[in-house]
Amino acid sequence: MTDTQVMTPTHRLEAILDSSRFGRFITAVILVNAVTLGLETAPSVMEKAGGLIHLIDKICLSIFVVEILAKLLVRRLRFFRSGWNVFDFVIVGIALAPGTQGFSVLRALRILRVLRVISVAPRLRRVVEGFITALPGMGSVFLLMAIIFYIGSVIATKLFGQDFPEWFGDLGLSAYSLFQIMTLESWSMGIVRPVMEVHPFAWAFFVPFIMVTTFAVVNLLVGLIVNSMQDAHGEEEGQRTDAYRDEVLSRLEAIEQKISGLNAPDRKL
Amino acid sequence: MTDTQVMTPTHRLEAILDSSRFGRFITAVILVNAVTLGLETAPSVMEKAGGLIHLIDKICLSIFVVEILAKLLVRRLRFFRSGWNVFDFVIVGIALAPGTQGFSVLRALRILRVLRVISVAPRLRRVVEGFITALPGMGSVFLLMAIIFYIGSVIATKLFGQDFPEWFGDLGLSAYSLFQIMTLESWSMGIVRPVMEVHPFAWAFFVPFIMVTTFAVVNLLVGLIVNSMQDAHGEEEGQRTDAYRDEVLSRLEAIEQKISGLNAPDRKL
Amino acid sequence: MTDTQVMTPTHRLEAILDSSRFGRFITAVILVNAVTLGLETAPSVMEKAGGLIHLIDKICLSIFVVEILAKLLVRRLRFFRSGWNVFDFVIVGIALAPGTQGFSVLRALRILRVLRVISVAPRLRRVVEGFITALPGMGSVFLLMAIIFYIGSVIATKLFGQDFPEWFGDLGLSAYSLFQIMTLESWSMGIVRPVMEVHPFAWAFFVPFIMVTTFAVVNLLVGLIVNSMQDAHGEEEGQRTDAYRDEVLSRLEAIEQKISGLNAPDRKL
Amino acid sequence: MTDTQVMTPTHRLEAILDSSRFGRFITAVILVNAVTLGLETAPSVMEKAGGLIHLIDKICLSIFVVEILAKLLVRRLRFFRSGWNVFDFVIVGIALAPGTQGFSVLRALRILRVLRVISVAPRLRRVVEGFITALPGMGSVFLLMAIIFYIGSVIATKLFGQDFPEWFGDLGLSAYSLFQIMTLESWSMGIVRPVMEVHPFAWAFFVPFIMVTTFAVVNLLVGLIVNSMQDAHGEEEGQRTDAYRDEVLSRLEAIEQKISGLNAPDRKL
Repeated sequence: MTDTQVMTPTHRLEAILDSSRFGRFITAVILVNAVTLGLETAPSVMEKAGGLIHLIDKICLSIFVVEILAKLLVRRLRFFRSGWNVFDFVIVGIALAPGTQGFSVLRALRILRVLRVISVAPRLRRVVEGFITALPGMGSVFLLMAIIFYIGSVIATKLFGQDFPEWFGDLGLSAYSLFQIMTLESWSMGIVRPVMEVHPFAWAFFVPFIMVTTFAVVNLLVGLIVNSMQDAHGEEEGQRTDAYRDEVLSRLEAIEQKISGLNAPDRKL
Repeated sequence: MTDTQVMTPTHRLEAILDSSRFGRFITAVILVNAVTLGLETAPSVMEKAGGLIHLIDKICLSIFVVEILAKLLVRRLRFFRSGWNVFDFVIVGIALAPGTQGFSVLRALRILRVLRVISVAPRLRRVVEGFITALPGMGSVFLLMAIIFYIGSVIATKLFGQDFPEWFGDLGLSAYSLFQIMTLESWSMGIVRPVMEVHPFAWAFFVPFIMVTTFAVVNLLVGLIVNSMQDAHGEEEGQRTDAYRDEVLSRLEAIEQKISGLNAPDRKL
Repeated sequence: MTDTQVMTPTHRLEAILDSSRFGRFITAVILVNAVTLGLETAPSVMEKAGGLIHLIDKICLSIFVVEILAKLLVRRLRFFRSGWNVFDFVIVGIALAPGTQGFSVLRALRILRVLRVISVAPRLRRVVEGFITALPGMGSVFLLMAIIFYIGSVIATKLFGQDFPEWFGDLGLSAYSLFQIMTLESWSMGIVRPVMEVHPFAWAFFVPFIMVTTFAVVNLLVGLIVNSMQDAHGEEEGQRTDAYRDEVLSRLEAIEQKISGLNAPDRKL
Repeated sequence: MTDTQVMTPTHRLEAILDSSRFGRFITAVILVNAVTLGLETAPSVMEKAGGLIHLIDKICLSIFVVEILAKLLVRRLRFFRSGWNVFDFVIVGIALAPGTQGFSVLRALRILRVLRVISVAPRLRRVVEGFITALPGMGSVFLLMAIIFYIGSVIATKLFGQDFPEWFGDLGLSAYSLFQIMTLESWSMGIVRPVMEVHPFAWAFFVPFIMVTTFAVVNLLVGLIVNSMQDAHGEEEGQRTDAYRDEVLSRLEAIEQKISGLNAPDRKL
């Protein structure tokens, strides 16, 4: 770059947004905001310093909005190419919505802004990316479990729905109860033993259901372990092994050719 | 094939049955049927559109019956060689039975037809086949656990059956209670603490039982992981390694022979 | 061996004991005995056929006693060198004791005879031997957990023993309650929440206890998996790799020497 | 060392402290102290022999204090470089504090002295060191779980705090309840079902929370297994493979050079 180069405002803004100093500033704002959002849950603190806390909260939110608008200005539609930017955009969007509507659920979801710390810290980002890349490999097993849950819910609703409407009254309630049974929480004392007093053979449905779903979960776990091992092993080690093997084979070929070249003139003698 | 070839009706039928278009059609029918069978559990929907839903259900079932009859016609007894065909045959058979008898359990089992989606979708099929091939390797541990459960049930029935007939009244009740204890559900607060009020040393039976069965389950898991790792590792990687080693050894032999052939005429000089 | 060889009675007995026919006979006796011992738990069956069942039980036991006496006669003290023989000896011994004393616990333990099926079936034997060989590697972690449990029991007894004598009244009760808490059974709703009503900071003892013991159990599992993987991988594969490497190196050495031998006369020219 | 060498008192003290005989003596004192601290929990024993037990306890503590003072005298500030020494120092310090103050919690913590047995026994030390070296690799996942718990606690407090003050009254109570839910203890029957009677969509918060935290815990486990496998595999085996590969390549190079040297004079002929 020549010394006469003039930095446009956009370039200067991009340089600021990409600087590690700005990153640390945003992290600090997120942490301050996390503390104020936590303090909001304590009525005693809100009585004394409620105004100050709401003020800090608004300042933090404003900083986030300005940051995202600046990024949008600089990167335009490229902004939405990164999943993490979309993630930030949605989370700040949720934070803006409750300010206008005041729904208690949306107000509670403002704390999701703290998740932004993941998109800012590279190490946390890598862990979450690791989780997400592990998901597609488990897609088939998830689909299979969804089918098992659908079938299980229909059967449970038809067989036990009339006698135990609280647990198996409709498909949704049955699915929830079966999820509870899959986690083994109070499955026998809480659910199956009472059901067996009316339907003595209910165990013939629930015990196989527990075995099948537990086995599927175990297979998910086994799949995760095997994939992680291969990722950890295959990458670096595999490339080194391949490089070594290629070198051995090419050297052996070179030796063979040289000997052949040695043989030919010898024969001529 | 020559242009004079005449396709018999059987061949034409087989071509239709094997076409991917027909596969997609059957998948769609299964999914439609899954929805109607699910809707049957909602009384409010059945009141309004019960007739329509029963009609769709009957149409779907008829399509399945025709499909299986067509496959039987084309493949005859070869049909039963594939486990998946037998699976489809039994499931549609179950679906036919309740139509005539009206047993509530059999009617509830009609939803098992949705399992046909597994035999139709190759990815799900592979997952289930993976589960099934993992089973024989766990046979010995399963047999061992069956022996432990039988012994445990006999001991529990003899020791605690008289005082706690609800939990340990006979072998079946004991086996069910021990299964619950193995899953750790309410084992102490629900079962063992009450039992210990009558038999203070009951823990000396239940705590070792929990340890032994948990250890056996953990070993099942370990076995699964080790097998999966070997399958994932051994197949492709092992063959490549063997091919590489064979090539290195044969090349070394070739070099050795050439040098020997070089040596011989040299000596003659 | 010459044709005039005379088989002594001891040799003939040993041949019978080692024959697969005799093994199958003993297995059958064990299974018959397992059934009769199971039937003993059903009062309705005992009323009708109690005499017959007791008779079969006595016959089975007699066969076991004769078998072990025969083995003792043939092998003398070598008999006790095999762990499985000692196992059979103790189990049949337990079975004899209750016949004379009539203690209900010892009578219930007669069913342990069914465990003999493990020492008779080679596949089950290998599984159990696999379990037992895995134990020493876990010795240090078990010792550590025993120390943690002892320390935890003393602390829990001192802090909560006076207010909750039923759960933490003495070291034994505390150890049992901590085992229950480690298995996560009703740890919060059943134990810690009631304790926290008296001692609000009880969570500061129980939550770390759960984390430490769970982490130790997970490490046991990880150790088991790593050991199994190395056993499965190292044995055969490692030997093949070593054999291959030795051959490559010795062949390379041979080639090098031949070339050196080729070089020397060449130089002389 | 020359025969005129005079051992200073400090050297002699160090030799005693490092001797295996002294180590065994300290282990014995720890074990004796463990027994007396355990006996202190039994009121019946304390009534009869309380004075003797307190005396032994004081003697044991004095030995520990003298040991640590001697180590401090010999090693000065180097003493604090080893984590295990700091561990011993803090634990004996805790043991001294209650003697002067008499707080019941600190008195209960005296049993932590038994943990010294870990710093004395090399095998236990290695297991604990293995645990501790495994922790940093799990740092990111722990941080992520802390964020999830903080967010979850804020949301739960805001949404359910007013209706269920006992479980979600403030951030601390919510965090404890969410920890209980993560361990799957009574999560449904004990907490979520009652909450759903007031907030019917509470499952939409708790079920994803269970899935996310369980998945994170499973990933911790998978990470531990993969790390252990690499440690077990990489160390020795990797070095042997590298040594073998270096030798093959250097031998191939030597052969190539010899052949080239062979080629040159041949050409000259």
